[in-house]
Amino acid sequence: MASTINLGLAGFGTVGSGVASILEENKDWIARRTGGDIRIKTVLVRDTAKPRKQTPPPGTRLTAEPSDLWTDPDIDIVVELMGGTGAARTLVAESLGAGKHVVTANKALLAEHGQELFALAAEKERGLYHEASVAGGIPVIAALKESLAANRIEKMVGILNGTANFILSEMTDKGQDFAAALARAQELGYAEADPTFDVEGVDAAHKLVLLIRLAYGCHYPLSSLPVTGISSIAAEDIDFAAEFGYRIKLVGQVRSVSGRIEAGVFPALLPEHYMLANVSSNFNAVRVQGNAVGPVMLYGQGAGALPTGSAVLADVLSLISYDRRPNNTGYQELVLPDADILDPELAGFNHYFRFTVADRPGVLAQLARIMAEHNISISQVIQKGEASGRRVPVVFLTHQARTREVNAAITEIDAQEFTAAPTVHYRII
Amino acid sequence: MASTINLGLAGFGTVGSGVASILEENKDWIARRTGGDIRIKTVLVRDTAKPRKQTPPPGTRLTAEPSDLWTDPDIDIVVELMGGTGAARTLVAESLGAGKHVVTANKALLAEHGQELFALAAEKERGLYHEASVAGGIPVIAALKESLAANRIEKMVGILNGTANFILSEMTDKGQDFAAALARAQELGYAEADPTFDVEGVDAAHKLVLLIRLAYGCHYPLSSLPVTGISSIAAEDIDFAAEFGYRIKLVGQVRSVSGRIEAGVFPALLPEHYMLANVSSNFNAVRVQGNAVGPVMLYGQGAGALPTGSAVLADVLSLISYDRRPNNTGYQELVLPDADILDPELAGFNHYFRFTVADRPGVLAQLARIMAEHNISISQVIQKGEASGRRVPVVFLTHQARTREVNAAITEIDAQEFTAAPTVHYRII
Repeated sequence: MASTINLGLAGFGTVGSGVASILEENKDWIARRTGGDIRIKTVLVRDTAKPRKQTPPPGTRLTAEPSDLWTDPDIDIVVELMGGTGAARTLVAESLGAGKHVVTANKALLAEHGQELFALAAEKERGLYHEASVAGGIPVIAALKESLAANRIEKMVGILNGTANFILSEMTDKGQDFAAALARAQELGYAEADPTFDVEGVDAAHKLVLLIRLAYGCHYPLSSLPVTGISSIAAEDIDFAAEFGYRIKLVGQVRSVSGRIEAGVFPALLPEHYMLANVSSNFNAVRVQGNAVGPVMLYGQGAGALPTGSAVLADVLSLISYDRRPNNTGYQELVLPDADILDPELAGFNHYFRFTVADRPGVLAQLARIMAEHNISISQVIQKGEASGRRVPVVFLTHQARTREVNAAITEIDAQEFTAAPTVHYRII
Repeated sequence: MASTINLGLAGFGTVGSGVASILEENKDWIARRTGGDIRIKTVLVRDTAKPRKQTPPPGTRLTAEPSDLWTDPDIDIVVELMGGTGAARTLVAESLGAGKHVVTANKALLAEHGQELFALAAEKERGLYHEASVAGGIPVIAALKESLAANRIEKMVGILNGTANFILSEMTDKGQDFAAALARAQELGYAEADPTFDVEGVDAAHKLVLLIRLAYGCHYPLSSLPVTGISSIAAEDIDFAAEFGYRIKLVGQVRSVSGRIEAGVFPALLPEHYMLANVSSNFNAVRVQGNAVGPVMLYGQGAGALPTGSAVLADVLSLISYDRRPNNTGYQELVLPDADILDPELAGFNHYFRFTVADRPGVLAQLARIMAEHNISISQVIQKGEASGRRVPVVFLTHQARTREVNAAITEIDAQEFTAAPTVHYRII
């Protein structure tokens, strides 16, 4: 490598300041690995005059003009940390077009425009590296692209959103309801004032689409991904799940089913002895099952200035240190094929149902009959009659059943006169 | 890459047959990643005439002459799977010397002769890749070499030996003693007839030395590493540990203490809520704490034909796919400096002590006085007098204390007339 590598940073918020502080703190260490120096030459900000919470390192040039990053011949790598899918898309495309490598933490951008941007990077033979876009500093992208490359991935389950996981952990550990746990997450800075992206599964969906690209070598359109969040989870269901030995987690899951891809983001019950069920607080983890390696789990902090900065710099070091031709996706194709997506109605899972029904003889038999008519086989039951008088919860765990049959059974049960509230339903992993 | 890459395999036992079966099973998949074909051209065996349990793929040449691997101009990569430090050392050195890349799973060889072999690889600008040498298919070597490269590693704790972990898990879960759990491990094929390497920590020590090289960029001589195994662990200590909320695991640990390296392989108590404490059966895991990324844990199968084969092929793909200059250690230096090793006597830990003492008044006070005189501060005590009549166990957990003081206290206590059996002592992590 050249003795000094110049970065152009677009954005200087949490992650940008994390990158700067790691470069400063670990300067000598990084030089041992690269044989040279990495410096932030230019930082793109919205308004150069605005007072800044985080100050770029001395000698850094501030600019409000995006093209200053891609037209500067001294800048080797453009690091896109501005977020969003508008100006960031232009910046990444222009930078690749100008022959810069790009490192980005922007999952929304790559989930929505990845197909076009990876094709451009391939055409220009430039890096479009994005370890920081999924699970912070946990090296899941490198693992899928390189370390597990000889494997067919049978299944992957990830806890991909630290905010949602923190909220569910609070609800589980402290018996709080969703609103109280969310308020606590906001207090601690783990959740935004508007938490929609995190709690409704949108952020996890972005990440899952990126992981599917790497694991299966295909383009899974974000708009095709079934996504359910956690905002309607009741403390009651967390308690019932615990009685059966399960914890509720927001997961992103993808499997290969007879060569087709079945994927989704949804809250699910995980057996409490699973490693993944024990990923608590704001931590992330991804469990990958390969046909050679078996199950592998990677675990750590999925967000934050330094963990995400660590991932950004892993990409920078990878791009500069070893003369390698960029390996953006792990596959030879310049454009990856579209995913062959399994109809979500045909996906098979074990299931958790909570019915709210009138407390009178014969109701349990009716519920069981309707399930049987839809070919859903019950494995465990909890019925508690004592507490609420006229309406009681009945909880079923079932064996494997397809979403189509499950939905049909719920529709029929919810139409019964003995049903007092809509049926609650979660999948079991 | 060339349209066909030829491998020369030295050895065709468990791992070799795993490599062959992954190449066969995932042939089309691997071609998507490499754009070409990988085949096993030649297999080196001890005796070509001997009937073989595992049969190399059709078209493979069998040879008993090692130089057939390194003198064949068609062979691109030599995969060393013969084990041991004699013939394997010659094979690796000759192959590097002849300009071949080498992929090896041989932890003993690299732990004992790594300094010389990595220097040779650096001089020849050839790969000496060894993902399979630590923790099977879990990508811990890639993580240290690349993904976490911008971090200073503060601390690393690994469960590096599946046999030992299986035995301790059996002892913990089923209340068995060491001998019964070992017999069970042997029955299942998890332990060798002579289990010394696994249960006495030798295998974990080899792996730890390799991880230290990557994490700290230094040569830690195997002979300097303090190693204690698990063969003397009593069921009683597993039970006492559980009463305090801990599990006993065989760990390899390394930390940076004021710029010096403090490392060892030993059984330790881990709080049961730690992810690492929940790594059970024959699984492996490594927890790495970086100064940027925070804690990261990698978990999976640490051995077996297919997991280890997956790691071998990750290295093969890495060497051939991306025109990269080999990155064997993650550092620029051709020869890594010697580790600056902290005197193990100065290492600080929390501790677990089990004393076996006469059951009479004043003994607890005496024990506490001796600990205090050695500046060891007690945090928790269990004393049970009911059971055994004349001799009783007394268990102390302590705050941070140095090995020197701990050893001195044990020597003094074991010399007391009230002490009925040597003191048992474990560190707490």
